[in-house]
Amino acid sequence: MIEYGDKVLILLEDEETKYFSEVEKGTVLKTHYGNLMIDSIVGKEFGERISLGLRDAYLIKPSIIDGIFSLRRSTQIVYPKDIAFILLNLDIKPGDVVYEAGTGTGVMTSVFSRQVGESGRVVTYEKRSDFLEKAKKNVGHLGFAERVNFVAGDIVECKDSKVADAFFLDVPEPSTSLETSTTILKRSGRICVLCPTANQVQETIGILRNLGVIGVQVWEIMARSYKTNPERFRPEDRMVGHTTYLVFGIKVEGRKLHD
Amino acid sequence: MIEYGDKVLILLEDEETKYFSEVEKGTVLKTHYGNLMIDSIVGKEFGERISLGLRDAYLIKPSIIDGIFSLRRSTQIVYPKDIAFILLNLDIKPGDVVYEAGTGTGVMTSVFSRQVGESGRVVTYEKRSDFLEKAKKNVGHLGFAERVNFVAGDIVECKDSKVADAFFLDVPEPSTSLETSTTILKRSGRICVLCPTANQVQETIGILRNLGVIGVQVWEIMARSYKTNPERFRPEDRMVGHTTYLVFGIKVEGRKLHD
Amino acid sequence: MIEYGDKVLILLEDEETKYFSEVEKGTVLKTHYGNLMIDSIVGKEFGERISLGLRDAYLIKPSIIDGIFSLRRSTQIVYPKDIAFILLNLDIKPGDVVYEAGTGTGVMTSVFSRQVGESGRVVTYEKRSDFLEKAKKNVGHLGFAERVNFVAGDIVECKDSKVADAFFLDVPEPSTSLETSTTILKRSGRICVLCPTANQVQETIGILRNLGVIGVQVWEIMARSYKTNPERFRPEDRMVGHTTYLVFGIKVEGRKLHD
Amino acid sequence: MIEYGDKVLILLEDEETKYFSEVEKGTVLKTHYGNLMIDSIVGKEFGERISLGLRDAYLIKPSIIDGIFSLRRSTQIVYPKDIAFILLNLDIKPGDVVYEAGTGTGVMTSVFSRQVGESGRVVTYEKRSDFLEKAKKNVGHLGFAERVNFVAGDIVECKDSKVADAFFLDVPEPSTSLETSTTILKRSGRICVLCPTANQVQETIGILRNLGVIGVQVWEIMARSYKTNPERFRPEDRMVGHTTYLVFGIKVEGRKLHD
Repeated sequence: MIEYGDKVLILLEDEETKYFSEVEKGTVLKTHYGNLMIDSIVGKEFGERISLGLRDAYLIKPSIIDGIFSLRRSTQIVYPKDIAFILLNLDIKPGDVVYEAGTGTGVMTSVFSRQVGESGRVVTYEKRSDFLEKAKKNVGHLGFAERVNFVAGDIVECKDSKVADAFFLDVPEPSTSLETSTTILKRSGRICVLCPTANQVQETIGILRNLGVIGVQVWEIMARSYKTNPERFRPEDRMVGHTTYLVFGIKVEGRKLHD
Repeated sequence: MIEYGDKVLILLEDEETKYFSEVEKGTVLKTHYGNLMIDSIVGKEFGERISLGLRDAYLIKPSIIDGIFSLRRSTQIVYPKDIAFILLNLDIKPGDVVYEAGTGTGVMTSVFSRQVGESGRVVTYEKRSDFLEKAKKNVGHLGFAERVNFVAGDIVECKDSKVADAFFLDVPEPSTSLETSTTILKRSGRICVLCPTANQVQETIGILRNLGVIGVQVWEIMARSYKTNPERFRPEDRMVGHTTYLVFGIKVEGRKLHD
Repeated sequence: MIEYGDKVLILLEDEETKYFSEVEKGTVLKTHYGNLMIDSIVGKEFGERISLGLRDAYLIKPSIIDGIFSLRRSTQIVYPKDIAFILLNLDIKPGDVVYEAGTGTGVMTSVFSRQVGESGRVVTYEKRSDFLEKAKKNVGHLGFAERVNFVAGDIVECKDSKVADAFFLDVPEPSTSLETSTTILKRSGRICVLCPTANQVQETIGILRNLGVIGVQVWEIMARSYKTNPERFRPEDRMVGHTTYLVFGIKVEGRKLHD
Repeated sequence: MIEYGDKVLILLEDEETKYFSEVEKGTVLKTHYGNLMIDSIVGKEFGERISLGLRDAYLIKPSIIDGIFSLRRSTQIVYPKDIAFILLNLDIKPGDVVYEAGTGTGVMTSVFSRQVGESGRVVTYEKRSDFLEKAKKNVGHLGFAERVNFVAGDIVECKDSKVADAFFLDVPEPSTSLETSTTILKRSGRICVLCPTANQVQETIGILRNLGVIGVQVWEIMARSYKTNPERFRPEDRMVGHTTYLVFGIKVEGRKLHD
C-alpha cells in the first residue's frame, strides 16, 4: 500500500509520459492532463490504475533509475547501460567501501550507496561545492545520504590508503588523479575510470600500467532499443552513439613495471 | 588476509591466464606452469604477488563474475553485459523476492541471490533435474544456496500469486509461460524475458500487451572490448555479435487490453 | 575550370554549411551570408577559395552523393552506408541491365544509372505517378535520364523475363513482388530486397528460398561517425540506429525446393 | 553461355562451400566431393545446376568481390563493408585517375581499376616488390591490368602534382605520406586514409587540417550479418569487431591553416 513518505512514478497509458512524485500531505502534482491530489493515492496499491483527467494512468513503484532520472541535474548524466556495467564489473556488494571522484550531482553516488547497503560506505570527492550540495540533496531524496561522506575538494588531497574495495573516477582530467586513486584502493580492489575520449583512454591505460595495475580492460557499451510493435519489429531510428569508454583494472602489489 | 574457506583467482602476469581455486587444506592447483600448494597462500594478502613456476602471478579476490565463470557449465551462459543490464532494470535490491524460470545451471540464480541479500529470497524453477542439481551445487559454491528455493518442474505449475518483486524468464518457449509469470508478480513488479530470436520477441511483446503489462521495452546490449596498447588503441578484431534480446515490462492492474 | 552546365558544391570554412548550385547564366545563389552571383565563379577552378560575405568558402566538385542529397525529396531516403553496400553486393558494372521497384524519388535510380554507364540500362517501376515525375526530374538533374526507363505501374505487371543482371526491390510490401522480381532476373543475376522491419525479412527469406534463390544473406550496416578534434577523439554522441535490413540472393535454375 | 576465358564460381547446395575456377581447356577442379572437368561446363548457362559428386551445385557468375576473395593473399584484406564505403565516398567513376599507396596484393587496385573503366587510370605504389608482383598477377586475373601503373617504390618519391581525382592511402605509417598524397590530388579531389588504430586517426586528422584539407570526416563501418532461418531470425553469434577507421577529406586551395 502507498503511504506518506513513499515515492511514486505515474505512468500514462501511452507508456511514454511519466511523472515522479513524493507522497506528501497536500501535494498537488500538475500535469498536462490536469492536477492530481497526491493525498488521493494514499492507501492505493502500487500497480493500480487511476484517472488523470481523461487518461488512464498507473501507480508504479519507482526503480533506482526512475528515481535518479526524476531529479533535476546540471551535469552530464551517466546512462543506465554504463551504470549497470560499472556496478557489476566493480563487483560492489553489501558492506563494501566505495570511493568516488567527482561526485557531480550524485548519480553514481546514489547507485553505489544503495548497492553497499546499510553496512557499507561511500566516500565521494567533488571540487565544485554547488555540485556537491546538489548531490547531497539528490542522494538524500533517494534515502541513502547517511551512507555517504560528501567531501568538498580534489581527490588528490585525500590521504587515505588501502581502504577502498572499489574506486570510481569520473573527473575532467583523470590522468592526474590515478596515482592517488590506486593508493586509496585496497590490494585486489577494483578501479573504473570513465573516459569520454580516446585520448583519455590512451593516457589512462599507460599510467595504470606504470602504477602496476593488472587486468586492465577497456569497454564500450552500446544499448540498442527496439520499437515494440510486433507487426513491424525493428530498432529505433536514432540511438545514442557514444557516451564514454570504461577503463577497468585491479590493484596488486609488487608488480614489476613495464618500460 | 587469505583464509581457509576463501576463494581465490590467480592471475598471471600476462593478464590472460587465470586459475580459480577454493582455499582448502591440502589442495594442489595444477597449472601449465607447475603445481601450487594452496596451503602456501594462506596468510598472504589478496593483491600479493606469488611465483608460479618461472612466472609471476597475483592473488585476486574473485568477483561474482569471476566466480560464475569459474564453474563448469553445460548450458549456454548469459554474458556479463546482459547480466548487468538485467539486474539494474529489474531493480533488484536487498530484501526482494525474485522468481526465475528456468534455472539452467544457475548463473542468474547466483547473481540474484547475492543481490537480494540475506533478507531476500530467490525461487527458481527448472524442468531438467540434472541442470537443477548442477545449479544447486554452483550456487552453493558461491555461498548463497540458503537464499534459494530450487524447484524441479515447469513454472506453469506454480500456483503462487502476487509474490514476486521481479521475474526473470529464460526458457526455450517463453510464450507459454508468460501468463503464469505475470500472475506470480506483485503489482508494479518487473519482468525480464530473455529472447534469443526476433520471433520470440515478436510473440512475447504481443502476449505481454494482452496481459496488460505496461512499459514494455526491448533492448539489445552490445559490449565492445578494446585492445589495451596505448600506442595502437583500437577495438578487438572479433566481437560477440549477438547473445539475446531482452524484453522488459511492469505488471499493473486493470489495464484495458488492446485488440 | 568551372563552366556553364556544371554543378558546384559551395562548402563553407566551418565544414558544415553547404550550398549546391547549377552553374547557369544569371543565377543568384541566396545564402545566410549574402548572395553569390554564379556567373562570378565561371572560369575558376574546382577547389578554389571564394568569399561569401565575410566567410571563406570553397568550390567543390559535387560527388554523386552530394548531388543526390541536394535534391528535395518527399520519400524516405536511402543512406550512403546502405547505397554503397547495395552497389557492391549487386556487383553493378558498366553495361549492366538493372531493374528497380519502386523508384521513389529516384535515389537508387540515380546511383544505378551512373554505375551502369552509357552502355547500361536501368528500368524502374513506380506506382505513384507524382513520385515518378519527381524521380525523372531528379535523375535528369544528375544527367542520367537517357539511361533509364521510367515505368508508371506495379512491378507485378511486368512481363519481362531473364533480362536483368540485378534487381533492387524497395516497396512497402516486398513479399508480393518477389516472384515477379526473380522472373525478371537473368540466371545468376543478383537481387537485393530492402526490408525496414524484421517481419519483412522473415517473410522475404522464406519466399526467396521457395523460389529457389541461393546464397541468401541478410545484412545490416551501421556507420559510426567520429568527431574530428584530434585532442578529443571520440564517436559522435548520436547516431542513426536503424535504417533497413538488406536481403541479398542469387537466382539459379533447377533448385529443389525446401519444404 | 559459359565460354573458355570466363571465370566461374561453383556454389554448393549448402550455400557455404564454394569453388572458384577459370574456364580453361583441360582444367580439372579438385573438390571435397570429387573432381570436376571444367570442359564439361562450357556451353552451359550461368545459373544452371550441375552435380558435384553426390551434391548439387550451381554455376555462378562471380562478382568482383567473389573474384578478389578467390585469390590467395599474403596481406591483410580490406572487407567488403569498407570497400563499398570507400568507393562511394571517393566518388570514383569512369574516366577517373586514382592514385593508391600501398598496393598490398591489389585488392583495392582491382576494385578501383574496374570502377574507372577503360578510359580511367589507376597508379599504385608499393615498396615491397614481392607484394607488387602478386598484385600485378591478381589484377591481371581479373582482367584489369592494362588500366594500372604498378610502381615499385615509396609514394613520397612521386613527383606528380594535381593529377588525381582520388587518392587512397593504406600504408603502415600514413602520417609521413600525407603531404605527398595531397600534392598529387587535383584541387577538389578526394582522399581516403585507412587507419587501423585511433592513434593513426588522431595524427592523420591533425596533419590533414594543417595541409588545408577540408570536409574531414572519420567513419567506422560495422556490418552485421543475420542467420537466415525465418523461424529463428537473429544476428550471427560472432561478428567482425573492428577492421579500420576511414578518414576522408577534400583538397582545396588557399585555405588558411589552423594553429
